Amino acid sequence: MKLNYPNAIKKEIITINENKNNKINHKNRGMTLESELNVTNEYYREIDKAYIYKKPTPIKIVKVDYPSRDKAVIKEAYFTIPSTTDYNGIYKGLYIDFEAKETKSKTAFSLSNIHKHQITHLKNIAKHNGISFLIVRFTTLNRTFLLKTDSLLKFINNNQRRSIPIEYFNKEAFIIKDGYRPRIDYLKIVDQIIGGK
Amino acid sequence: MKLNYPNAIKKEIITINENKNNKINHKNRGMTLESELNVTNEYYREIDKAYIYKKPTPIKIVKVDYPSRDKAVIKEAYFTIPSTTDYNGIYKGLYIDFEAKETKSKTAFSLSNIHKHQITHLKNIAKHNGISFLIVRFTTLNRTFLLKTDSLLKFINNNQRRSIPIEYFNKEAFIIKDGYRPRIDYLKIVDQIIGGK
Repeated sequence: MKLNYPNAIKKEIITINENKNNKINHKNRGMTLESELNVTNEYYREIDKAYIYKKPTPIKIVKVDYPSRDKAVIKEAYFTIPSTTDYNGIYKGLYIDFEAKETKSKTAFSLSNIHKHQITHLKNIAKHNGISFLIVRFTTLNRTFLLKTDSLLKFINNNQRRSIPIEYFNKEAFIIKDGYRPRIDYLKIVDQIIGGK
Repeated sequence: MKLNYPNAIKKEIITINENKNNKINHKNRGMTLESELNVTNEYYREIDKAYIYKKPTPIKIVKVDYPSRDKAVIKEAYFTIPSTTDYNGIYKGLYIDFEAKETKSKTAFSLSNIHKHQITHLKNIAKHNGISFLIVRFTTLNRTFLLKTDSLLKFINNNQRRSIPIEYFNKEAFIIKDGYRPRIDYLKIVDQIIGGK
């Protein structure tokens, strides 16, 4: 099986490896966006506010060993391209769906970070009255944005370039402020979106 | 890492192995419930009716090899217990969430097939105005039921026994009829549920 990995998958592979070698300290300032979203979603569940989960990484399993009756060890498997976004769930009876990405760039977010069919997915969800968006963190600037699907599509439809400049985020996206609990209160922005509908 | 696998995980392991050795023929009468749900959900997406997906199998990755720059091979990984149900998505703007199980028994469906926290999850979804349910197929009887979460909870709260007799399904659940396209039209039942709300 040969597969050319798009940037999104390459990053995922790197992240998994990094997480393996450097165990994440939850008190650490330098938490990844993924870890922060995980603790945020846990908090939302704890207070019975929303049930939003990260989907498991999609994998194609090729070989499984059974060293004992109740034990299965996967011995050969490959990362596959996700058909949807990473996060979905329910909030106030609404279907919530989003993808979250980090970039080290200070100037732009490259669209190569998202698969084409993930964009199609976000579009389908929005069309069916779900709340879909991207969360993008510019790690160097320490700034996290929520970009609604319609703003994302507006950019794609009106621009030739394959990366979204930070100016577009400043103008069109919502800033998500860092907090303690919840760590990144993106549902506060969702409330604004629902209110403005 | 040691883990005693509940029945649900054991079955998943067996299913993965079976699928590997006997490639599924989509024209085959003897399709598994999972395969039928997959083609049904694909069909719903094709006709732009609903966007419901099966979540990837949750796995804990321990070791990854890189035989070449863009290639990653998972060399050691383990099945982990899922935190949620297998299927979720959006239909008519509503959040849909369910678990699907097969049983060979002709008389009852054992609750050991579902994790306790999956039941809690279904309950939370229903409480937050999502549509949550179980799809249970009695393979020997060739009968497929949709059991709403409130009916499931009613059984659990009023019975000591750890398996739901077929009579309870006949009385409390909806029968999902086999079809060609879609293969198992469970959204027809969801329409009835929404209409009856």
